[in-house]
Amino acid sequence: MADEERIKAAIAGADRHLNGWHGGPTVREQLAAIAEATGADERSDTYGQGERIGRLEERIAEMLGTEAAVFMPSGTMAQQIALRIWSERKRCTTVAFHPTCHLEIHEQKGYQRLHGLHARLVGNRHELITLTDLEGIHEPLACLLLELPQREIGGRLPEWDDLVAQTAWARENGIAVHLDGARLWQCGPFYERNHDEIAGLFDSVYVSFYKDLGGLAGAALAGDDELVAEARVWLRRHGGNLVTMHPFVVSAEQGLDERLDEIPGFVEHARALAAALRDVDGLEVVPDPPQAPMFHIHLRGDRERLCEAALGIAEERKVFIFGELSATSSPSIHYHELSVGESTLAFTPDETAALYRDILAGAAE
Amino acid sequence: MADEERIKAAIAGADRHLNGWHGGPTVREQLAAIAEATGADERSDTYGQGERIGRLEERIAEMLGTEAAVFMPSGTMAQQIALRIWSERKRCTTVAFHPTCHLEIHEQKGYQRLHGLHARLVGNRHELITLTDLEGIHEPLACLLLELPQREIGGRLPEWDDLVAQTAWARENGIAVHLDGARLWQCGPFYERNHDEIAGLFDSVYVSFYKDLGGLAGAALAGDDELVAEARVWLRRHGGNLVTMHPFVVSAEQGLDERLDEIPGFVEHARALAAALRDVDGLEVVPDPPQAPMFHIHLRGDRERLCEAALGIAEERKVFIFGELSATSSPSIHYHELSVGESTLAFTPDETAALYRDILAGAAE
Repeated sequence: MADEERIKAAIAGADRHLNGWHGGPTVREQLAAIAEATGADERSDTYGQGERIGRLEERIAEMLGTEAAVFMPSGTMAQQIALRIWSERKRCTTVAFHPTCHLEIHEQKGYQRLHGLHARLVGNRHELITLTDLEGIHEPLACLLLELPQREIGGRLPEWDDLVAQTAWARENGIAVHLDGARLWQCGPFYERNHDEIAGLFDSVYVSFYKDLGGLAGAALAGDDELVAEARVWLRRHGGNLVTMHPFVVSAEQGLDERLDEIPGFVEHARALAAALRDVDGLEVVPDPPQAPMFHIHLRGDRERLCEAALGIAEERKVFIFGELSATSSPSIHYHELSVGESTLAFTPDETAALYRDILAGAAE
Repeated sequence: MADEERIKAAIAGADRHLNGWHGGPTVREQLAAIAEATGADERSDTYGQGERIGRLEERIAEMLGTEAAVFMPSGTMAQQIALRIWSERKRCTTVAFHPTCHLEIHEQKGYQRLHGLHARLVGNRHELITLTDLEGIHEPLACLLLELPQREIGGRLPEWDDLVAQTAWARENGIAVHLDGARLWQCGPFYERNHDEIAGLFDSVYVSFYKDLGGLAGAALAGDDELVAEARVWLRRHGGNLVTMHPFVVSAEQGLDERLDEIPGFVEHARALAAALRDVDGLEVVPDPPQAPMFHIHLRGDRERLCEAALGIAEERKVFIFGELSATSSPSIHYHELSVGESTLAFTPDETAALYRDILAGAAE
């Protein structure tokens, strides 16, 4: 693997970035915009109370069709808190989620070490959870967490009927269903449904303001009034009831105002790119076609040589494609995630396919 | 009690504020200053990594004389994490602190509900912890938490020799000592010692960037390399490893640069105000003399009438003194905290004494 500093320099030095994560406004520009959106006499929220944060929480509740919502600094807090509440309500410490769930792989097992919860992992780590997987569970559960789209496997989404059947299964078995909707904003085009229809299948919903929406940081947990009131108590326990979250709140509002409507265009562009990439030898699009504005690109070859070729292009042509690749089960196939955003739109399908052909050819030399 | 809206309006409408908490820059001004301090090409910290956040952490470690420090969104996180680490190292779930400790009264018992810790409360809630109190503990402890100054009792500080004796007692008994130094910045003048000398008595130290220093939010936990590395793992579990904390980090730096040196002047002013207030009938300064740039003002009379008189003055003269009073053990005595800051310097001792005489006279009418 190329070293971290070289990758950082390549990202910083590039004029164009295929991945939507890069190439947005600088933090200075973002801060200036936040200051500008702040009234001259405006007072910041204090320990979660304030006009603007209240307005944002109401807006989220309305978008998701829930009674209430609470703003939190991170999704890690929001989801652990939701599961803890369900656990206490259902008098059961076992919760179920996919093996690639954020709680399982990115949170140092906080659900266990802070909340005493036990995870029943469901389904194959390379595939979506199925109803058959759920029917194979033979122990009490407090809550089933479903992630839409399932990020770690390329942003896959179950068919609507499958989603309805899985959430119904949970309800019939007295199990709460929580939506990891970090990227719920991405799901509209695939389901051809509004956010509230999708969220309506769940008992509690987490959404993120920095993924897709470009906020500085922040998340919300939505549900019924009682759940949200209890979540505020847990938020204080977690140390997430900050003296102020004003910059996060303003940037969340700006994300909703300015970036939400762009997402269907990103999904369309993801599909157009995928259609061209499909024909590149040594490359596979996963899933094909993409269901969200993200997918995985699997490349066949030597990992170091592929990264070297991509970084070479970044350095020479100022076009950053990727700097690292992750392992798959096959030692000769490696992948990276492509998150389609503003900066991705500057790449036509043909140019993108040509770039990957160059990388694969460069690595094969 | 006057209603919350009226108090807010009185604070917003006043030209001068006795309490240093009020009357600072607006959040818009603060954000503009943060944007200005941010380089045009600067990249924000990402999940706790970045040049600026690293520099701040090193600066704190150096100021406190510890090997390392980690920036966190809140002190609630920092302290629960410190105690959890000590608990696991000492293989003991009991921790000791004052009955008015932040963990006991302001965190919805997060230490217990998230970390499974048990509290052995030490000392009388109206007084500082003494060595005799500590010697009366007959059970194993993982950690003793001392708060300097003890905020809820008027910002009191133990004599240096007492502090040395208490921390030595803990060490001799194999108990870690943690400093709740939310307001450590206030302690220099009383002890006539640098921050690192005070922090040097402890195994782990928490400091805050928004109290005294005026940062937007944020805290640091300092200690040896191993403790700080472990604290970063717990930070992720807590959901405090935010995608970025850039605005908090910059405002913390600005607080250290611009406000730290003002604190000795605030302590001096607190003592000057107290010396004049001491002679006001029906008023008691606690502690007298003040040891930090904060103290309590105890007023004798009817609580509602006292608040009414103070709010009347705020509304008529645009000078905000207090809007609410807290109960004491005596039904005829009520108090508020006075935190001496920038805006307090505009009040001379004589004017301040006259204002309280007016309030007491108004309430007695």
